[in-house]
Amino acid sequence: MSRVAPLSGFPEWTPAGRVVERHVLDTLRDEFELHGFVEVETRAVEPLDRLSGDSEASKEIYALRRLRADDVDGDSGLGLHFDLTVPFARYVEEFSGHLTFPFRRYQIQKVWRGERPQDGRFREFYQADIDVVGRDVLPTYVDAEVAIVMIRALSRLPIPKVKMRINNRKIVEHFFRAIGVEDIDGTLRNVDKLPKIGPDGVRELLAGKGLKVGAIDGVLALSAVSGSEGKFVEELRLVLGKAGATAELFDEGIAELKEVVAAINAEAPGTASADLSIARGLDYYTGSVFETFLEGHEDLGSICSGGRYESLVAGGGYPGIGMSIGVSRLVGRMLSQNLSVATRAVPTAVLVAVVDEEARPASDSIAALLRVRGISTEVSPSAAKFGKQIQLADRKGIPFVWFPGEDGEDGTGEVKDIRSGDQVVANANEWIPPAEDLKPRVERG
Amino acid sequence: MSRVAPLSGFPEWTPAGRVVERHVLDTLRDEFELHGFVEVETRAVEPLDRLSGDSEASKEIYALRRLRADDVDGDSGLGLHFDLTVPFARYVEEFSGHLTFPFRRYQIQKVWRGERPQDGRFREFYQADIDVVGRDVLPTYVDAEVAIVMIRALSRLPIPKVKMRINNRKIVEHFFRAIGVEDIDGTLRNVDKLPKIGPDGVRELLAGKGLKVGAIDGVLALSAVSGSEGKFVEELRLVLGKAGATAELFDEGIAELKEVVAAINAEAPGTASADLSIARGLDYYTGSVFETFLEGHEDLGSICSGGRYESLVAGGGYPGIGMSIGVSRLVGRMLSQNLSVATRAVPTAVLVAVVDEEARPASDSIAALLRVRGISTEVSPSAAKFGKQIQLADRKGIPFVWFPGEDGEDGTGEVKDIRSGDQVVANANEWIPPAEDLKPRVERG
Repeated sequence: MSRVAPLSGFPEWTPAGRVVERHVLDTLRDEFELHGFVEVETRAVEPLDRLSGDSEASKEIYALRRLRADDVDGDSGLGLHFDLTVPFARYVEEFSGHLTFPFRRYQIQKVWRGERPQDGRFREFYQADIDVVGRDVLPTYVDAEVAIVMIRALSRLPIPKVKMRINNRKIVEHFFRAIGVEDIDGTLRNVDKLPKIGPDGVRELLAGKGLKVGAIDGVLALSAVSGSEGKFVEELRLVLGKAGATAELFDEGIAELKEVVAAINAEAPGTASADLSIARGLDYYTGSVFETFLEGHEDLGSICSGGRYESLVAGGGYPGIGMSIGVSRLVGRMLSQNLSVATRAVPTAVLVAVVDEEARPASDSIAALLRVRGISTEVSPSAAKFGKQIQLADRKGIPFVWFPGEDGEDGTGEVKDIRSGDQVVANANEWIPPAEDLKPRVERG
Repeated sequence: MSRVAPLSGFPEWTPAGRVVERHVLDTLRDEFELHGFVEVETRAVEPLDRLSGDSEASKEIYALRRLRADDVDGDSGLGLHFDLTVPFARYVEEFSGHLTFPFRRYQIQKVWRGERPQDGRFREFYQADIDVVGRDVLPTYVDAEVAIVMIRALSRLPIPKVKMRINNRKIVEHFFRAIGVEDIDGTLRNVDKLPKIGPDGVRELLAGKGLKVGAIDGVLALSAVSGSEGKFVEELRLVLGKAGATAELFDEGIAELKEVVAAINAEAPGTASADLSIARGLDYYTGSVFETFLEGHEDLGSICSGGRYESLVAGGGYPGIGMSIGVSRLVGRMLSQNLSVATRAVPTAVLVAVVDEEARPASDSIAALLRVRGISTEVSPSAAKFGKQIQLADRKGIPFVWFPGEDGEDGTGEVKDIRSGDQVVANANEWIPPAEDLKPRVERG
């Protein structure tokens, strides 16, 4: 068979890898639904004018063209969505008559970005988003609630612990204005590079855009503030004082940040800390912003990010808070570093052996009896010697082989655990495999 | 809020509609896995040269272009897949080292076709495929097995019964050759139009391409043969005899068709019949071909089609049999004609009321106690009067409202079924809703 090369940036997994990915997707979905989030699925495409609003992301859009259109209308005017927020905003406008606010939605789909694939960036990848969108008001406790749902979901996965780092745009923006920084979004994008290029690198960038030394010092001093509840507030007030910024102006942002960090740590002690360097590239955040790192895998970047925004919908009135898990980035790491492994690559728990081709219906009957009780079962594709049939089960990773009895159709026979070699008399109307063998499981590697 | 128009051909559902779609997807997946099919998920894109092999489908391809590429390389050379067979064939080549044959795979993903949206045709839609691919040989009983898995899966859905119509390409091709028809694929495509334009219409098409009256009579006579096991064979031999075709040449095809129809009817009496007019547009089928219709909704066309092919992979050696359910077509009909309805649009079983904002943590505690036992729970977004909070539950379709007791954190309180008005004392460590209220269910409409 000819070799086919993989496409860079478009990850695909082996069947065993897909079991791991599916476990992640199912677990997230289950946790989101336990918290009353409603699933929304949007089409993969949006009109280009809706996608290209954001200048940073729009160069990454894949536009669609009908390959052999009969007319000049080959360009469809459509592009693949690059995140799940733009389509969700459009969905809320389109389906508002069917929604009750505050609307709690989750959405797990692939997104596409045409950027150069590098350091774990994909061109096609899964995102898992939750958002709560209110009408006119949405209290700060919802910020913490959304973060806690994500932490609960991630804590159910067979991966290391996560740490969440949180900032509040209100503090940052007030402070930047107080020290004379005008290009707030641009400066935030520079600060965002801190983990990559360090304070000296950021200093250079800021100087390059004409910021004065005092302002640069301020920006870097603020970015250096971090810690859990009480601690960061003291540090922060010190920095504010030094810069001559009136503390009162910052009280709202500080109170929110303190509340969110405390609420998360009350639920998951030691998980959250304030970090005034967390910037998030996107300019629509207006309050809490979040990044989440996997312990020991900080090089991977944030695996779960998001924040509070003024309004989901243009024109205002729909304040919201949303977070997004980069599922493919996470699964890629889980697989490449064997953080998690599937106990087997097939759903099948039992292979029913076939004595000879005439007796295949008896094996089919046994398979039906097992399936009716939820046990995934295949019938052997050939009536080869039993040794060969056991070998096939072994190659596939199927833990049990069933040998039909003389009168197999009544469900009697013997079942062998091919790992231990143990073989027992059994009836397909009653026998069940041990719970841990019923379905493939995903465990720490 | 501004009105946003839906995009023709790109279906999206309300949250309640998505519950129905999700039920279909989950049920199919469950049934496929019960039969030992392994999930494969491929990227959405393939290189254009791989997609454009088949002349019929290639004009429907959406090609991808990076919208604001810095270089002339905007054209990515990639297109969205238009089915799940082309990417599966490529996956088998690429991952063959990880697969054991016969390989049983299922794949449930969206596909895209740029054709004009009309009569229930979508441009973006879900397909659910199963295939069994062997090495060198794959017995005929697998044809029936794959069809039976599909029938079992469809029979678990809240939809009318299905009828499967089956043909065998070997009979058709031998017969066409025997009566002097040379353009077999083209003639099959004409025959495929029978349900739409009737025998007279097809006669006209065949005459237009220069077929002699005798050959046209033969094609139409063959296409008129149908029925269950014994019956169609007699009819068929009559037609063969009239056309002067030697029956022996057809024995293999007739035997296969008879076996497949009989095996399916043994499992699901009255479901399968032979229909020598079933053509399937695609030219890669070489044996059994299947179409499946929903009783009372034959106008929808086939909702589950497929067939036997010589080899999945170019160069031969990988014979297979596959079928594909047109999930979006089916779900679209289920929703538009209310064949199936969700009992509610939200996962939430319980809304925990909030007495006042200071007592929110007590309500959060109750929610946590319920969730830990798998009960989807939300906490009321406001501490409004209880009447208002009940109203919110009602609007969302949440069946139960929980009122925390004096000391709510210990789990005590009262729970009200807001449909009946019944309210009972309960403890969140023990109470469970009736099984039918635990999750949204999907029922016949």
